[in-house]
Amino acid sequence: MHTPLALSRRVGIIDLGSNSARLMIAHYAPGQAYRITDELSRRVRLSEGLAADGRLRTVAILRAVQAVRLFKLFCDAHGIKRIVPVATAAVRDAANRADVLRQLRAATGLRFRVLTGREEAYYGALGVVNGLGLSSGLVMDVGGGSAEFSRVERGRFRRGETTPLGAVRLTEMFLNNGDHVRPAALRRLTDYVDEALDRLAWLRLAPVETLVGVGGTARALARMDREARHYPFGLLNGYELTRQRLAALVERIIELPVAERPKQLPGLPSDRADIILAGALVVQRALHRARASALVVSGHGLREGLFFEAFLPHSTSPVIRDLRTFSVLNLGRLYGYEAAHAEHVTRLALSLFDQLTERHGYAAEERACLWAAGQLHDIGTVIDYYDHHKHSAYIILNAGLPGYSHHETALIAMLCLYHRKGQPVLAELRAPPRPGDLDRVRRLAALLRLAEYLDRSRAQTITRLRLEGSGKRLRLLARPRPGADARVEIWEAQRSADLFQSAYNCQLVIEPG
Amino acid sequence: MHTPLALSRRVGIIDLGSNSARLMIAHYAPGQAYRITDELSRRVRLSEGLAADGRLRTVAILRAVQAVRLFKLFCDAHGIKRIVPVATAAVRDAANRADVLRQLRAATGLRFRVLTGREEAYYGALGVVNGLGLSSGLVMDVGGGSAEFSRVERGRFRRGETTPLGAVRLTEMFLNNGDHVRPAALRRLTDYVDEALDRLAWLRLAPVETLVGVGGTARALARMDREARHYPFGLLNGYELTRQRLAALVERIIELPVAERPKQLPGLPSDRADIILAGALVVQRALHRARASALVVSGHGLREGLFFEAFLPHSTSPVIRDLRTFSVLNLGRLYGYEAAHAEHVTRLALSLFDQLTERHGYAAEERACLWAAGQLHDIGTVIDYYDHHKHSAYIILNAGLPGYSHHETALIAMLCLYHRKGQPVLAELRAPPRPGDLDRVRRLAALLRLAEYLDRSRAQTITRLRLEGSGKRLRLLARPRPGADARVEIWEAQRSADLFQSAYNCQLVIEPG
Repeated sequence: MHTPLALSRRVGIIDLGSNSARLMIAHYAPGQAYRITDELSRRVRLSEGLAADGRLRTVAILRAVQAVRLFKLFCDAHGIKRIVPVATAAVRDAANRADVLRQLRAATGLRFRVLTGREEAYYGALGVVNGLGLSSGLVMDVGGGSAEFSRVERGRFRRGETTPLGAVRLTEMFLNNGDHVRPAALRRLTDYVDEALDRLAWLRLAPVETLVGVGGTARALARMDREARHYPFGLLNGYELTRQRLAALVERIIELPVAERPKQLPGLPSDRADIILAGALVVQRALHRARASALVVSGHGLREGLFFEAFLPHSTSPVIRDLRTFSVLNLGRLYGYEAAHAEHVTRLALSLFDQLTERHGYAAEERACLWAAGQLHDIGTVIDYYDHHKHSAYIILNAGLPGYSHHETALIAMLCLYHRKGQPVLAELRAPPRPGDLDRVRRLAALLRLAEYLDRSRAQTITRLRLEGSGKRLRLLARPRPGADARVEIWEAQRSADLFQSAYNCQLVIEPG
Repeated sequence: MHTPLALSRRVGIIDLGSNSARLMIAHYAPGQAYRITDELSRRVRLSEGLAADGRLRTVAILRAVQAVRLFKLFCDAHGIKRIVPVATAAVRDAANRADVLRQLRAATGLRFRVLTGREEAYYGALGVVNGLGLSSGLVMDVGGGSAEFSRVERGRFRRGETTPLGAVRLTEMFLNNGDHVRPAALRRLTDYVDEALDRLAWLRLAPVETLVGVGGTARALARMDREARHYPFGLLNGYELTRQRLAALVERIIELPVAERPKQLPGLPSDRADIILAGALVVQRALHRARASALVVSGHGLREGLFFEAFLPHSTSPVIRDLRTFSVLNLGRLYGYEAAHAEHVTRLALSLFDQLTERHGYAAEERACLWAAGQLHDIGTVIDYYDHHKHSAYIILNAGLPGYSHHETALIAMLCLYHRKGQPVLAELRAPPRPGDLDRVRRLAALLRLAEYLDRSRAQTITRLRLEGSGKRLRLLARPRPGADARVEIWEAQRSADLFQSAYNCQLVIEPG
């Protein structure tokens, strides 16, 4: 109890891309829980000035080697022995690939694995499936040197291909001629993109499917859009960027000279100001081609996909089967939650939920949020006991719950915030509210609160709850374990029943029975 | 690394007071780190309706027994075997004390230890010394049935006495006659309080000393004052309540009928509305008597004092010698901070601080804040890596740093918030700002940021820093370990030097040397 699960294994994932080189460190207990603990990012621009003969430039290779040396040094300093170093399009397509690999090996001892186009797509899709719970749809990863497209069905990677539609490559090919964008250059770029996409006949999205964007371009676009909207939720993972808003963004980018873009477009990293237009156009044309109305951004991609192979080593396909459940339990384990109490509170709360279905009319989505809040409501104790309801909400909003949407995650945080006391207010919801959200929070938090006080002793004294009555008078019969005295739990729950009574507009009397 | 220290021991402290009964659970590694993980509080009002013959009423005893049974159940459910059950004034003074203890023992198996007045004072003082770092001064604990006063010198309890000035007792004696306060009753109460305080000839405060308030009355007064001022810092521990503001509070309380007090005085717990006036008057008269200009509120009192005996078992006096250092290391250990990196960054930052003394003019207080920030800047990683600077600040502001004032704690949080990037803004300071605070944060954060990037590899590559030059041109010579290549660290530090350059109004060139 209260003992966080020990994350005894560590791995460093090195991803040498065309634009950036990244080291990602994860601590994990295989199959159970994990946490990303460090990320180093170096702007290497490996494919900068790519020669006509397809050779990477010497100075670019040197930057890459220096970056990887730093990463190796970091891993050594941390005692991280397991390192997974991969290289993608820039190295894959380089005429002097062998020389690059040799230099990397000589400088760091690391043997880089050069991913094929399909593998690049596969790992990106794996990161997305395990990061968003994508069931069926398309995944698009616009990188520096290439863009990968994948089809996912029932949570499994089906097919994937690489295209040369990388933001750095396209910028060098079409847009590196001055500060202002010329319409003719834009047309040539768009035609080139459309031609490449046309070759992917399977790049279509069915109505219930999702198009997911991965990688630096998608994240930058999401950040810019989020800033422009004053979006209240801090995590990128799960952010939805609509076609209309993307179109408006692209227009703005085109208008601005490169040097002014970071200032005028908050959220745009300054080292991406020149290449963002090309990347944004690829995303735009892909949305058009796939007939998707929006892009959902994934915070997890290739690096996480590689990580999941280490995390779920004995699977033929390292896909987390029930991502929502996993995310909630992952967070609970990381914080050492008290499983027995959390399970019991959850059970009681869901029992009330099910018995009140006709009154509240809620369904699976709300039930899943209540389940998650029941599990996680006490994790904030790790910061401080006295305001742990606040801290639980903070942790959930900042760590995120892969598999749950932003709106669901914000609801779960609200339920945790109000699980002990207080009157819910909509201003505390960290997502754009939807109709009925305040009632939703009040009605669900009321159940969680009753359940919490019905286990005030933490002894799981109450074994069963039964609601009786109708209209404005309800009776809640709480059955204690045989021989146990539940008077205290019942008294505490009765004292905390005011939220229930106002949320359900009735009187509630709690009795043993 | 990143492995939180295992808190393998647990203890439950039960404090049966005149107003409330409380159970406090702590997890700890003796002498190293601890965390309060649960608190249950039951409003027992043990001394309610105290008979003329000094016997506690049967129904009050029954409430106490039920509360303690709940606590025992809770401890059993958590597998907490070590329980420290104590009783204070209400039981101590009860004519039927033996009967009360017998009933408690029969119902729960617990043998309550009845503290003497001096012991009550002692443990309260111990809680304060280890919770605020009080060196010399007075401690006042206004409870339900009694008020304890202690003198502390050089961090040690010197003397202490109990008085019958408990909030519940005084209310029952003088104020339980209707909703409005009658001036005559108020006078009689004030005279009674002054008489009791007069007997404590040693209740005087020297100018450099502090008067600390402990217990429910002090906390309630602090909460009310904090609400009235919209005070930006959330922790009670270390809150300063001035005589003027207390006087204004007392006036407002007197004006309001009991039933209206909670609504008109946010921060006042509703179950304290009737007894708050008596308690506030005791505090007010004590401040007057001791010639103190303010009361500093301690969030730690008797229960924590009892806990510290378990925490530091082999000391003759379980006082934490250097509380600031302990608090910082406690927090670091709880979050599994990387000691080697933290130590190194701290060392580099302090080296810069010391070499720049003539430029910034700061002294021990700022240096201590920089030290703390150097140790704690990465603890937020436990929530999420990508915004860990934000989370480190959040944790510090919510867990608190006993031994540091609110203002210092808020500064430390600011330094952590800005240790990686960004331009400090005063709005992020969670304490009433003082003149020069923005410059202070910029100058100190700049040092921490350089130090952080100078250890980007986490290999502690840079062994020494030397600043040369003057006026608008400074050179920072960074010496690598023999044979080590520090180009990356120096490059990263140079890239992050803009805050330093604007904070110190000079150009900074970083070179190996």
